[in-house]
Amino acid sequence: MKVLLIGVGGVGEAIAVIAQNRPWLEKMVLADYNLERAREVCQKLGAPEKFPAEWIDARDESQIVALARKHAVDLILNAVEPRYNMPIFNAAYQAGCTYLDMAMSLSSPHPTRPYQECGVKLGDAQFEQAEAWERKGLLALVGMGADPGLSDVFARYAEKHLFDAIDEIGIRDGGNLAVRGYAFAPTFSIWTTIEECLNPPILWEAGRGWTTTEPFSEPEVFDFPEGIGPVECVNVEHEEVVLIPRWIRCGRVTFKYGLGETFINVLKTLHLLGLDSTVPVNVKGVQVAPRDVVAACLPDPAHLGDRMTGKTCVVTWVKGTKDGRPRQVFLYQVADNEACMARYGLQAVAWQTAVNPVIAMDLLQAGVWRGAGVLGPEAFDPDPFIAKMAEYEVPYGIKEMA
Amino acid sequence: MKVLLIGVGGVGEAIAVIAQNRPWLEKMVLADYNLERAREVCQKLGAPEKFPAEWIDARDESQIVALARKHAVDLILNAVEPRYNMPIFNAAYQAGCTYLDMAMSLSSPHPTRPYQECGVKLGDAQFEQAEAWERKGLLALVGMGADPGLSDVFARYAEKHLFDAIDEIGIRDGGNLAVRGYAFAPTFSIWTTIEECLNPPILWEAGRGWTTTEPFSEPEVFDFPEGIGPVECVNVEHEEVVLIPRWIRCGRVTFKYGLGETFINVLKTLHLLGLDSTVPVNVKGVQVAPRDVVAACLPDPAHLGDRMTGKTCVVTWVKGTKDGRPRQVFLYQVADNEACMARYGLQAVAWQTAVNPVIAMDLLQAGVWRGAGVLGPEAFDPDPFIAKMAEYEVPYGIKEMA
Repeated sequence: MKVLLIGVGGVGEAIAVIAQNRPWLEKMVLADYNLERAREVCQKLGAPEKFPAEWIDARDESQIVALARKHAVDLILNAVEPRYNMPIFNAAYQAGCTYLDMAMSLSSPHPTRPYQECGVKLGDAQFEQAEAWERKGLLALVGMGADPGLSDVFARYAEKHLFDAIDEIGIRDGGNLAVRGYAFAPTFSIWTTIEECLNPPILWEAGRGWTTTEPFSEPEVFDFPEGIGPVECVNVEHEEVVLIPRWIRCGRVTFKYGLGETFINVLKTLHLLGLDSTVPVNVKGVQVAPRDVVAACLPDPAHLGDRMTGKTCVVTWVKGTKDGRPRQVFLYQVADNEACMARYGLQAVAWQTAVNPVIAMDLLQAGVWRGAGVLGPEAFDPDPFIAKMAEYEVPYGIKEMA
Repeated sequence: MKVLLIGVGGVGEAIAVIAQNRPWLEKMVLADYNLERAREVCQKLGAPEKFPAEWIDARDESQIVALARKHAVDLILNAVEPRYNMPIFNAAYQAGCTYLDMAMSLSSPHPTRPYQECGVKLGDAQFEQAEAWERKGLLALVGMGADPGLSDVFARYAEKHLFDAIDEIGIRDGGNLAVRGYAFAPTFSIWTTIEECLNPPILWEAGRGWTTTEPFSEPEVFDFPEGIGPVECVNVEHEEVVLIPRWIRCGRVTFKYGLGETFINVLKTLHLLGLDSTVPVNVKGVQVAPRDVVAACLPDPAHLGDRMTGKTCVVTWVKGTKDGRPRQVFLYQVADNEACMARYGLQAVAWQTAVNPVIAMDLLQAGVWRGAGVLGPEAFDPDPFIAKMAEYEVPYGIKEMA
C-alpha cells in the first residue's frame, strides 16, 4: 500500500513509526505545511525512499490531488486538525484514493436554539457526499482514531457478541496524565479541546434522534480502570454520537470527556472572557485570534512526552440485556505514557490514537475490511480488528459490571 | 493654580469635570498619548483656553518637562497607569512642580522568597528620592485617589479623633457594580487589576515590618454598608499598607479587595495559563503581550458607565482602644453609579477616585495643606479634607461597630 500522510504532528509521527516495518506498507509520503518537521520525522525513520518528506498546504485541494498522483498513492490519511477535512476529503475523491481520517468535518450550532437542536452536525459535510463515493466504488473510512475509532469498534463488538439488545452506549475518555514542571499543560491540542468542549454537546436517543445540550452538562464521576480512578466527566461533542446510531441498534448514545475540574474551569473561564474566540481582535494595532494566543502561551503537547506521567483511557460503556437479563459491560483500552515512551518513543495519546488507523490500513490492504461510501469504523466486522490488536501490542479489557 | 493633567482616561476626565468651575483653578492642560481622546474631553468641557488638549508620551521625561514649562504649570497630576510613574515624577522634580498621583511606583517581588519577603515595594522608587524633594522644598503628594487616598485620610482622622491606641487598620474595597448585557465586564482597568491582584500582597505589623503573602490569601467575607452586603475579600497589594505605618502608630495594616468569587477565579485562571504575562509571545509570527489580549477581548470600562448599576465602597476599618475600652469603627465612602451618571455624567469608580485629588489641589492652592518631600495623604491634617467633602458633594459615613 502506498499512503499519503497529511500532517506529521505527534499523531502523524506515531502513525509512521507504527507502520514503519509492516510488510503491507510500500511507501508513506510524509506531507506537512512545516516541511522542516516532515524532514525531521523522515530523518528519524532513516528510510527516505519509503518515507519521503513533502510540503503541503492542506487547504489546497488541487495540490493534494497532484501530490497523490505524483506518488501514485492508494490511500490518503488525514492527520491534521479537522478544520482542514473537506479539501483533503474532496482531493481523495478527485484522485480516486481511499480516504481515512480520525475526526470528522466540523459542526456549526443551530442559529437560534444552539443548546437544544443540532445545526450542522459533525461529519454532515462528509456524509452528504456518501452517495457519490458509493457510486464511484470508493471508500472514506471516517473517525478511525482511538475515539472515535477504537471506541466504535468496541461498540460494534459488544453488539455482535455481548448483547441481545442495547439500551445505551456511552463513550468515556479520561485519564490521569500529568506533566512534570508545569502547573497547567494540556496533553492534547488546546485548540481542538476548546473546539470540542465549547461546541454544544450532541446526544442521540431512539425516537428523538440527535439533540444538543449545554457545554459541560450532566457531570458524572466515572471510575476509570487500571488505577486511574474517578475523574469528573461531562458531555462533549464527539463523533461517536453521530456514527454509532447509523450502524448499531440501541436506545441512546452519549460521549463524556473526563476533563477534570481544573480543565473544565479553565475552559469556562476562557469562554467567559471571550478568549476561546477564533475571530481576530485588534491588540495595539496587531490582529490576533485570542484562541491562538492561548495556545501560544501553553507548552506544545507534542514535545511533552518525556515529562508526562500517567495513563489515558478510552471506554465504551454498554448497557442492555443478554439472555433476558440486564447486563453492563465496559470495553476499554489504556495507554501508559512511560511505557509508550520507553517502548516506542511516542507520547501515550499520540500512540493510542495512531495505532488504530494503522491497523485499519492493514485490514484494508488485506481486503479483510472493504466497502464503498462514507463509513464509520462500526460499519465493519470488529473481529479481525480486535484480533489484530495483539499483533500491534495494543492491550484492551472487557469488564463485566456489577 | 495651573495644572498639567497627564492621562485623560475615565479618571482624568472626571478630574477635569469636577475641577471645572472651582475658583482656585486657572488652567488644566489635558495631555494624553491619544490626542483625539484629549480633544474629545476638551470639547465636552467647552473651554479650550482653560482646558487645552496636548499630546504627550508619558514615558518621555523631557517632553513632560517641556510641556510643564510651556504652560508654566504649578502642579503635575499623574492620571495614567502606575507603570509610567517614574518619568512623570522625575519630570515634576526637574520642572520644579508639585507632583500628585493616585497609585505609586511599581513593586517587584523578592527573587527567592516572593510570598514571604518584600522585594522592591510599591513606592520605594519614589520614597528613595524623598530627601532630594525635601531639600528642594518641593512636594510630591502620593497615593491621593480614593484608595489609596481618602482611605488614608480616614485612617489619620480615626487616629486623631476616635482612638487612643490602634491595633489594626484594615482597608476594604468592594461593591456590587454590575454591567448590564455582559456576562463578565470589569468595572476597572483589567490591566491594573491583574497587576495589583497577582503581585504578592503586602502586610505590615509592628515589630515585623513589611512582609508578603500568597495572592488571594486570608479570604474574608466583609459586609459592606448601604445595601451592598457581603462580598468575599482577599489580600491584595496596595499602597495603604506602605503609607499608613509611616505616619500612623498602629499594630497592623492590611488591604483586602472585594473581588468576589468569579473575579478571583478569572484572575487565578489567567495566571495558571500565563495569560497575565506582559512579556510578548509569538502568535503565528506576530508579537503580542497576553495581558494586552485579555484587555482587548473585554469591553473598555471607561465606556460602560451607562450600562452599570450598583455601588462601590471604600472602607477604613479601625480596631483599637478609646478611654481604656476596646473600640471598632469603620469610616467609609460609597458611590452609586446611577447617581454619579445622573449628576455628573461620570462612572462611579472614576468619580470616586477623581474627587480626592481635586479636593487635595484645592487645599494645596489655599495653603491649608503644605509640605515638602514625598508624602502620603495621612501626613496631612485630615480635618480640612473631611470638611471639604460636603462642598464637593462627597457623602461619607462613620460607623461604630458592635
